[in-house]
Amino acid sequence: MKPIRVGLLGIGTVGRGTWDVLQRNASEIRRRAGRPIRITMVADREVAHAKKITGGKVKVTADAMQVVCSPDVDIVVELIGGDRVARTLVMEAIRHGKHVVTANKALLAKHGNAIFSAAQKKGVMVAFEAAVAGGIPVIKALREGLSANRIEWIAGIINGTSNFILSEMRDKGLPFETVLAQAQQKGYAEADPTFDIEGIDAAHKLTIISAIAFGIPMQFEKAYTEGISKLTRKDIEYAEALGYRIKLLGITRRAKKGIELRVHPTLVPASRLIANVEGVMNAVLAKGDAVGATMYYGAGAGSQPTASAVVADLVDVTRLITADPEHRVPHLAFQPDQLSSTPILPMGEVQTSYYLRMRVVDRPGVLADITRILAAARISIGAMVQKEPAEGEAHVDIVLLTHQAIEKNVDTAIARIERLATVVGQVTRIRMEELL
Amino acid sequence: MKPIRVGLLGIGTVGRGTWDVLQRNASEIRRRAGRPIRITMVADREVAHAKKITGGKVKVTADAMQVVCSPDVDIVVELIGGDRVARTLVMEAIRHGKHVVTANKALLAKHGNAIFSAAQKKGVMVAFEAAVAGGIPVIKALREGLSANRIEWIAGIINGTSNFILSEMRDKGLPFETVLAQAQQKGYAEADPTFDIEGIDAAHKLTIISAIAFGIPMQFEKAYTEGISKLTRKDIEYAEALGYRIKLLGITRRAKKGIELRVHPTLVPASRLIANVEGVMNAVLAKGDAVGATMYYGAGAGSQPTASAVVADLVDVTRLITADPEHRVPHLAFQPDQLSSTPILPMGEVQTSYYLRMRVVDRPGVLADITRILAAARISIGAMVQKEPAEGEAHVDIVLLTHQAIEKNVDTAIARIERLATVVGQVTRIRMEELL
Repeated sequence: MKPIRVGLLGIGTVGRGTWDVLQRNASEIRRRAGRPIRITMVADREVAHAKKITGGKVKVTADAMQVVCSPDVDIVVELIGGDRVARTLVMEAIRHGKHVVTANKALLAKHGNAIFSAAQKKGVMVAFEAAVAGGIPVIKALREGLSANRIEWIAGIINGTSNFILSEMRDKGLPFETVLAQAQQKGYAEADPTFDIEGIDAAHKLTIISAIAFGIPMQFEKAYTEGISKLTRKDIEYAEALGYRIKLLGITRRAKKGIELRVHPTLVPASRLIANVEGVMNAVLAKGDAVGATMYYGAGAGSQPTASAVVADLVDVTRLITADPEHRVPHLAFQPDQLSSTPILPMGEVQTSYYLRMRVVDRPGVLADITRILAAARISIGAMVQKEPAEGEAHVDIVLLTHQAIEKNVDTAIARIERLATVVGQVTRIRMEELL
Repeated sequence: MKPIRVGLLGIGTVGRGTWDVLQRNASEIRRRAGRPIRITMVADREVAHAKKITGGKVKVTADAMQVVCSPDVDIVVELIGGDRVARTLVMEAIRHGKHVVTANKALLAKHGNAIFSAAQKKGVMVAFEAAVAGGIPVIKALREGLSANRIEWIAGIINGTSNFILSEMRDKGLPFETVLAQAQQKGYAEADPTFDIEGIDAAHKLTIISAIAFGIPMQFEKAYTEGISKLTRKDIEYAEALGYRIKLLGITRRAKKGIELRVHPTLVPASRLIANVEGVMNAVLAKGDAVGATMYYGAGAGSQPTASAVVADLVDVTRLITADPEHRVPHLAFQPDQLSSTPILPMGEVQTSYYLRMRVVDRPGVLADITRILAAARISIGAMVQKEPAEGEAHVDIVLLTHQAIEKNVDTAIARIERLATVVGQVTRIRMEELL
């Protein structure tokens, strides 16, 4: 059969991986897809570099618009990142009736609704396995593999940089800044690491996961996002002593009044498999009402792992390219006219349990004041650890683990505790999840 | 749109789960599939029981042949198990142009080639996600999610009963027989547990995994199968002390001279995620050349988890039911005319590393004899532990961990070691895998 012709936008890290995988595994991929998949055009600002990689075998241009309009391209692979130029190019590709494969989570989290709607009208596919958790086929698992289930919740380690930093902080007892610098040296973190360490990248991916799990539109702007930059070794150690690990989790849950959509550091029981996912690896834990908990683990980033997902999407699109749209998996797992209007729950309404650490004057009555404030806010305590003060120290750490409580009540209680004359500085609050 | 009409063969544990999930999540499933999926006919030997479950809403018969021939059935779900009657029914269903969904691993491992070939000719789909690892969408992950990869190897905990027994033996220090009896009481093991504990069930599943990973026909008869019934607490403890866990793994690997296909107890480094999969849970670890290692974890059996996979297959089949066969995923991941003839490697040719335990007379020169035999068979030793003899004991345990060696050389060496006058009884040999 005639080869499928792919136009590649961007031949950086993932683009290079995609090129390599399609070359190296050409025969394996053709045996699966039933026809060859060939990159026929590449757009990259660095034309010379792109020509070097592709060895003069394909047309190379600096003008991406040429690729998305070309009659010689069946599928456009968008790997340039960002959400401005990429949006224009993807929309233009769709307008020209091209199918699109993208690894761009920011683009989809922010403009996915418009993009899928345009694709729907035009009858083309937009595939995005590579946008979440790199090479792990988690979009496929959630959208197709668990289609029998009412999804209850999903919790994921979906930012490798943060997980690497937390693993190293725990493993080597190093402070955040030191490990961040190491991660930057190793190329695991960008020069400006904000997107990764402040949970924004994870929130992009979580937005996509949430949409396909619950059949709701993308609502990135409603995601609660808190990163790991304020985490201390001390909290990691206290958590450890209590039998927990701290992970940056993206959590989305079907609660009574709405869908939770939140990224934040989270205490997880150390015995859970996901608590033992270390380094730059990713893992997504999904709970369905029929299947129970399932987990998907693997490399969440990197050239060839991400290319693995891009090429898997190319195979899927190739297989269905001449099929009626009704034979295709809907973009957001649910038929486009069947999306749900369940709202995203404001963070204040979220119910979970908490790790609270405070530094107090070592004097009788202090604990009584604190527990009275918590009780008044309807927060009950599950466990408490009071550290012995160090020699000559006037202050002591108290760590409390609460039962389930409502976030806004915890906010109120923390504000009151911080106003106590016997409490020094701020209360550290880290959310806890049992993940059962 | 018109509902898809499903004929259910067998409404036992999984059949009941399938009925329940389709009822409970009918709206969720319709929102995904684009049309309702409805069981319209049920065949079960216990007609009264089946009528009770289905509440008189559908036609119930004791004659399964009626269902597979019925013009009112679009998809036949085969959940009766076994490989005789099931084979006849599935082949008959295909002959009548029905699509088939089955959870029957024994059927596919033994007769899959004939079944898929018949389905291919007739242009119908045979879906079997539920046949491997219950609710975990691992067939989908391997067949579609990793389609960009040349798969290097797959290692799976794919029998929950065995994993439960091994977990309990390690956790509670109990002997095999005691834990097996407990597993039988809990309903995790059958009255005749042979299929589970001797690795046969795992070998059925591994045969299917191997076929879709490497694009080869089903070759169950060539699988090497060794169960857990001879494992002792002692070996579990020694392994633990050396930093390993013992798991019953199904392993299939692309080696130089052929495909490895083997089920046996295996020492795995305790730090590996898969070594920490406990109880009845399943996990499949797959290594692709682009993606690296990925893992899929969840409930490998049970009524609703398995039904989750059956219903996911129903949704997939529903989506593609009127599509041309070329739009469908090939049964064995590769196009039917593209299967590979790479042979299954005989167990003697497999290369791996080994845990060897022997009981010897506590006397100088014994170890020298043993190491001489190993060296002669080109087996090098990576680690050795000699236990101090207990008070008044004339015998002592020696545990050796070897580097990579060829199985037939190890067989030879073991036979020679067992002939030494200073070695008491048999040498215990357990294979080891790094899984990196």
